[in-house]
Amino acid sequence: MSQKPLNIAICGVGTVGISTIEILRDQREALLSRSGRSLLVSHVGARREHTDHDYGDARVSRDVMDLARDPDVDVLVELIGGTSVAYDLIKLAIQQGKHVVTANKALIAEHGNELTALAETAGVQIRFEAAVAGGIPIIKTLRESMAANDVSEVAGIINGTGNFILTEMSTKRRAFDDVLSEAQALGYAEADPTFDIDGTDAAHKLAILASLAFGIPLSIDAPMKQGIQDVSPEDLEYAASMGYRVKHLGIARQTNQGIEMRVHPTLIPEQKQIAAVDGVLNAVMVSGDAVGELLLVGPGAGGAATASSVCADLVDIARNPGGSGPALGVPASQLSEQALVPSEQIASEWYVRLTAADQSGVMSDITQVLANRDISIESMLQKPPAPGSGKVPIVLLTHMAPQSVMTDALSEITALGEVEPDFALMRVEAFDR
Amino acid sequence: MSQKPLNIAICGVGTVGISTIEILRDQREALLSRSGRSLLVSHVGARREHTDHDYGDARVSRDVMDLARDPDVDVLVELIGGTSVAYDLIKLAIQQGKHVVTANKALIAEHGNELTALAETAGVQIRFEAAVAGGIPIIKTLRESMAANDVSEVAGIINGTGNFILTEMSTKRRAFDDVLSEAQALGYAEADPTFDIDGTDAAHKLAILASLAFGIPLSIDAPMKQGIQDVSPEDLEYAASMGYRVKHLGIARQTNQGIEMRVHPTLIPEQKQIAAVDGVLNAVMVSGDAVGELLLVGPGAGGAATASSVCADLVDIARNPGGSGPALGVPASQLSEQALVPSEQIASEWYVRLTAADQSGVMSDITQVLANRDISIESMLQKPPAPGSGKVPIVLLTHMAPQSVMTDALSEITALGEVEPDFALMRVEAFDR
Repeated sequence: MSQKPLNIAICGVGTVGISTIEILRDQREALLSRSGRSLLVSHVGARREHTDHDYGDARVSRDVMDLARDPDVDVLVELIGGTSVAYDLIKLAIQQGKHVVTANKALIAEHGNELTALAETAGVQIRFEAAVAGGIPIIKTLRESMAANDVSEVAGIINGTGNFILTEMSTKRRAFDDVLSEAQALGYAEADPTFDIDGTDAAHKLAILASLAFGIPLSIDAPMKQGIQDVSPEDLEYAASMGYRVKHLGIARQTNQGIEMRVHPTLIPEQKQIAAVDGVLNAVMVSGDAVGELLLVGPGAGGAATASSVCADLVDIARNPGGSGPALGVPASQLSEQALVPSEQIASEWYVRLTAADQSGVMSDITQVLANRDISIESMLQKPPAPGSGKVPIVLLTHMAPQSVMTDALSEITALGEVEPDFALMRVEAFDR
Repeated sequence: MSQKPLNIAICGVGTVGISTIEILRDQREALLSRSGRSLLVSHVGARREHTDHDYGDARVSRDVMDLARDPDVDVLVELIGGTSVAYDLIKLAIQQGKHVVTANKALIAEHGNELTALAETAGVQIRFEAAVAGGIPIIKTLRESMAANDVSEVAGIINGTGNFILTEMSTKRRAFDDVLSEAQALGYAEADPTFDIDGTDAAHKLAILASLAFGIPLSIDAPMKQGIQDVSPEDLEYAASMGYRVKHLGIARQTNQGIEMRVHPTLIPEQKQIAAVDGVLNAVMVSGDAVGELLLVGPGAGGAATASSVCADLVDIARNPGGSGPALGVPASQLSEQALVPSEQIASEWYVRLTAADQSGVMSDITQVLANRDISIESMLQKPPAPGSGKVPIVLLTHMAPQSVMTDALSEITALGEVEPDFALMRVEAFDR
């Protein structure tokens, strides 16, 4: 091969960085054959404690900024995470005329508009397949395979930690805290798991998917966000008995009222394929007017799976150094704002669990409140009272209602003396529209 | 935009051709934004009966060869099917320096080695995302997203007609001929459905997937091939009662003995996601050493879904007119033969249904034959005799055994006077290795 190697700088040598270095080393011949040029790790940015790994012939620097300034580097791979140093680093690399590959969803969600615009001006590529759903090629599918589609919806299980926790709670009737501790011990959850639990991580990824799907600018605050911390094993069980599984979904949907973007625990009919995606797996459904519905399932995290996506981006750059279309599908300057539906106006079917006094007339009072607000009941489950408690759990599935109508109804219902103030409320999505 | 339009010739105006023309017209603005240049249908090849459609400003010719010779055409889209005219057409287009997009799996499976080599020499692209699994981006996933993986296996439901028939037989207990007639009435099956039924169509697609997965030359005759015509509703029912679904799968697997390539009805554990892919949907599982297992599910046929993939190829060409890597992942000259495992040596678990005389000692005779050949039994189902028949059905699931060992055992068993000569035999795949 006469083409000169693609010199790659790897910033950050955690599990993904090390896996990337190993893959590029072990697949050297295959990647040369596939790309027409060598993919060479020429410079590694590693903190003190990581400088003693075997990085082959690569230079090793402790200051990652040195990698962005290295004139021999063609592509900078950002795997340090966070949104401060990583931001400065990528900006510098772009200014230095280098392509960028990153797995950093928070950074892309927060600074992607600016960074993609900078890259386009500089004539370099910025790629982030690994930032959403790990090894699943969902960025490429939206950006390239569905380029000729009007996309109406993207919905997915895009946080593996959350899905692991819900799966364990649901299949083994375990409590949230108990499973979370195990997830941390297994390395699935961070020491500070807040972003996995409260939906922040999924919201970052959803913002990226929505931008690619609908051609809108990235907006980190756009998704309405609800975590899994309040899901109880009891609700998982009721949902199962009514034919549903509960998954923590990110949903971005084009509607007549605007774009819905939301992250929340969701009841899904058990016969829907995505309902069966368990454990740390991720899955993304995409609907387009031409292709119909696609479902992609695979590992959403893990060093090697994420590195597989990082390397795919590197191969794309090696094959198309002149660029292969805009990072977000359309040029940054052509991304166009669309109205967002405020969360209180987002309609869906609902799962409601109330606790009521075990006395006649309660059910009639509840259904009257719902009827007054045009909320119709799809099905109802009333369990016998816990012995001696005098309290009965009442579980309802409703037809479509906006969130504000639903929460107003629940305020009125819980103001009835017969119904306790604590209740559970989750959205139901049949994905049949 | 200053770039000149990409002039596209559409050869063949059946459902996929018309859908492609409509998408390129309706998405004109979006595609310009995504590609940086207009995607323009400049020439249409239509037989006499199709010349009166509205093709906008495009020239219309009855001789498709005129499109390959048109100096204004940049990309020729071949949608006429078959392997004679289509072959000449694509060869001519390449010789004329045009890129080629095709949905023709038979052509790629049969002539792809030559055509991709010609295209590489001529410096043009040949792309065929639509040739396998319709709207599912499996070609791109193997060629690009998994470029850094050693692929160990590709397995999928890659013929929608066959899957529709098996699904109807299984869920509604209908007979094969009955469902086939309906599939033809619905337009799912061709007037001559032979290739859908006997596995030929799936074998063509599998040959393409295997080449991309393992870097081997295309070989149309490599897959061992068994159709769905001999699957009985009875066997679907027995399989279900043992926790399995029967799917017509194409499987290409890297083993220590070489590459297995096979197309056949397969028992799959019902909890495996692909077992729940019903109707005309397609699904492909891919396993790679870095990414692990990916599953892609979506429409395997239909005008718009197939056209979605054709248009994705066109956008890729518009974005990367200079090429974006070899059509089969590695350059045609670097594809490298690997040994194929002959079908009689391919080992798997097996489903066997025998009909035996309802008398003592039969079971012992059967199990003795199997034991003598080291075939161990995983589970067994013995049904009561049909009243007055004196015959009992015996259903066995075995552990791993090569096909030749299994068929030899069955010859010996059916030679026992107590067992009828007719039996059912299907492979079982747990996909858990």
